[in-house]
Amino acid sequence: MTRVTVLRQLLGKPLVGPALSNSVFIQARNGHNVAQSRLKRQNLQEEFRNVFPRIVEELTEDKEYKHIPFAMNWQKEVLEINCTRGKLNRGFTVVDTSISLKNGKLTEEELQNAYIIGWGIEMMQSYYLIMDDYMDQSKTRRGLPCWYLTKNLGPKALNDGFLVLSSMFELFHKRFSGREFYRDLIHLFRNVDTTTITGECLDIFMTPNKDEKPKFHLFTVENNSKMFHYKTAYYTTYLPVAASMILNGFKDKSAFDAVRDIAIPLGIYFQEQDDFIDLYGDPNITGKIGTDIQEGKCTWFAAQALTHGTNEQKKYFQEYYGSQRDEDIRKIRQFYDEMDMKKRFEIHVEQTLSKIKSDMENLPENIPSDIFSKIMKALEKREK
Amino acid sequence: MTRVTVLRQLLGKPLVGPALSNSVFIQARNGHNVAQSRLKRQNLQEEFRNVFPRIVEELTEDKEYKHIPFAMNWQKEVLEINCTRGKLNRGFTVVDTSISLKNGKLTEEELQNAYIIGWGIEMMQSYYLIMDDYMDQSKTRRGLPCWYLTKNLGPKALNDGFLVLSSMFELFHKRFSGREFYRDLIHLFRNVDTTTITGECLDIFMTPNKDEKPKFHLFTVENNSKMFHYKTAYYTTYLPVAASMILNGFKDKSAFDAVRDIAIPLGIYFQEQDDFIDLYGDPNITGKIGTDIQEGKCTWFAAQALTHGTNEQKKYFQEYYGSQRDEDIRKIRQFYDEMDMKKRFEIHVEQTLSKIKSDMENLPENIPSDIFSKIMKALEKREK
Repeated sequence: MTRVTVLRQLLGKPLVGPALSNSVFIQARNGHNVAQSRLKRQNLQEEFRNVFPRIVEELTEDKEYKHIPFAMNWQKEVLEINCTRGKLNRGFTVVDTSISLKNGKLTEEELQNAYIIGWGIEMMQSYYLIMDDYMDQSKTRRGLPCWYLTKNLGPKALNDGFLVLSSMFELFHKRFSGREFYRDLIHLFRNVDTTTITGECLDIFMTPNKDEKPKFHLFTVENNSKMFHYKTAYYTTYLPVAASMILNGFKDKSAFDAVRDIAIPLGIYFQEQDDFIDLYGDPNITGKIGTDIQEGKCTWFAAQALTHGTNEQKKYFQEYYGSQRDEDIRKIRQFYDEMDMKKRFEIHVEQTLSKIKSDMENLPENIPSDIFSKIMKALEKREK
Repeated sequence: MTRVTVLRQLLGKPLVGPALSNSVFIQARNGHNVAQSRLKRQNLQEEFRNVFPRIVEELTEDKEYKHIPFAMNWQKEVLEINCTRGKLNRGFTVVDTSISLKNGKLTEEELQNAYIIGWGIEMMQSYYLIMDDYMDQSKTRRGLPCWYLTKNLGPKALNDGFLVLSSMFELFHKRFSGREFYRDLIHLFRNVDTTTITGECLDIFMTPNKDEKPKFHLFTVENNSKMFHYKTAYYTTYLPVAASMILNGFKDKSAFDAVRDIAIPLGIYFQEQDDFIDLYGDPNITGKIGTDIQEGKCTWFAAQALTHGTNEQKKYFQEYYGSQRDEDIRKIRQFYDEMDMKKRFEIHVEQTLSKIKSDMENLPENIPSDIFSKIMKALEKREK
């Protein structure tokens, strides 16, 4: 069997038999550079996707589970359904970044490790989505009913969220616990988790309960930006790049700092886009109608209004923001128009991106700036 | 200042000023054996309790939080209220075990480390309780309203649960990431977490939704015991002992296996006691009225009925078990009386404990059996 055939078989469909188990195929391929033809982005994206069934098998073949097949099957279903339905952008960024950091000269082992870490990020993301959808009592996710709304699960879905997070750490332990980078890797993921939870905590604080007035005293540009930093940016843009750096042997704190200084503003911008789409997006494309105004959320726009409005404007805004009445919602939309919010947002985005681009030119030599160009490209003209 | 005065000050009230920060006081006290007079159980229990406010400070003094005082204060409140109200038995077992393993010759550092790990276990337990209470929609915990029922929290309480778990791992990282035992320690906690979640998954599977019939086909002695093993025993009795062993440099797998073979049956017995108390406990002492029968839970008693009853008895049992009607509940209670369940349970407990006691005699030499005697003592004649 030629090496190519073996690879095709290994990366194609699920395999049978212990001789071709995951760890074996990784060892066998160590040390060889990945053929350039395989490095095409589309090929890699497909390979990346095909790795997951193997991960699920690896996580559930553990002998402790064998006694209780219904728990094992449940774990499989939870992982398969929840982790694979997204665009996989965060996860694939690990692969993209690793290729950039190695200047395209990745060994098979390095590529496989990037896949594993990438899937770890997708698993972490799935955990957040299961939890968030339940806490926000959302109805749909990625065009389908939220997990807690399927199979009569309700609050029991939460346990599945924990299962996904826990499985991620199990996967890292199984694959990497003998490696020098293991300690840094799990510290990064733990740290990101704490940060995201703190961001969620900020969001909870800044969002009113039903029938309460919005918490206008907290609506500042700084609080809004801190919330986006913690809740979204840290795990969306910093995590995949930092994880890839750890995987590729980076240790120098200043390199991580330089990356964070670019990744966080990019991630905040990502979340600001969400606010823009909630307000101005086309429901035919987004698949949902924005509700930030009636929920009294501290969005980028609301923070702008209360930071830059005149006292009279602030008073007017506070009178109608957070109301359920269509009439009041219209008033706020009109108010935003009068404050020329679309234009303000455009200018803000332009400033953000130009600052990011200039910071990208001053990165340390061993960090190629195309890591961020790729992320920026994915964020450009996002409509949902 | 004498050493005793310093200790008193350090262990007494919260301290002010960076010179007396936690890490400093631990370093200063390294290498000295703890004075025998302080090793009295009551003193240590008080010291153990007094360490927690310092932990909370350490976890929230992080500079990232300083910008957002309301998030910092919230984290403090979540930790203080949720982690300190229990009996702290699981946490203190780490201290008890460390003293036994070191034959009473503990250094200050070893003692402080045992406190930290002990509090980690209490934090883990608090996370489970916040989540469980919400998933089961329980009303009270330790005589007070459940966390999700306070402060209008509802599902937002879940985020606080994640915060507690995440804080535990942060604490371990802050204190132990430079130590050789760190990797084993966090693997143990992660593994215990996955196991507990799997146990919860089993419980969810074996408990019917509202208005559904109980899942009698799953009611076997084996499934019941597996559920107790995973859901409760692993973190209740195995975790504190194993964590203490890791802290004290144990590496040999066979030592952990020997400990697990005793700890797990003890932990299963603990959960079986819960079933007994739900059925036969005095509501004046327990503070609640048992609901296992009407919820259709796969309890020890239900599993016995469906494993050892005649076909006729099984049919009768299945007719009335899981019903909300007082009359049917009474029928099940009567059925249990006819099957002499109290006596069966007594015999079962006797057999369990005598097996455990005989296994305790065959422990490896470096594991003193009084580790388990102390746990058994705490479980004896438990009434709530």
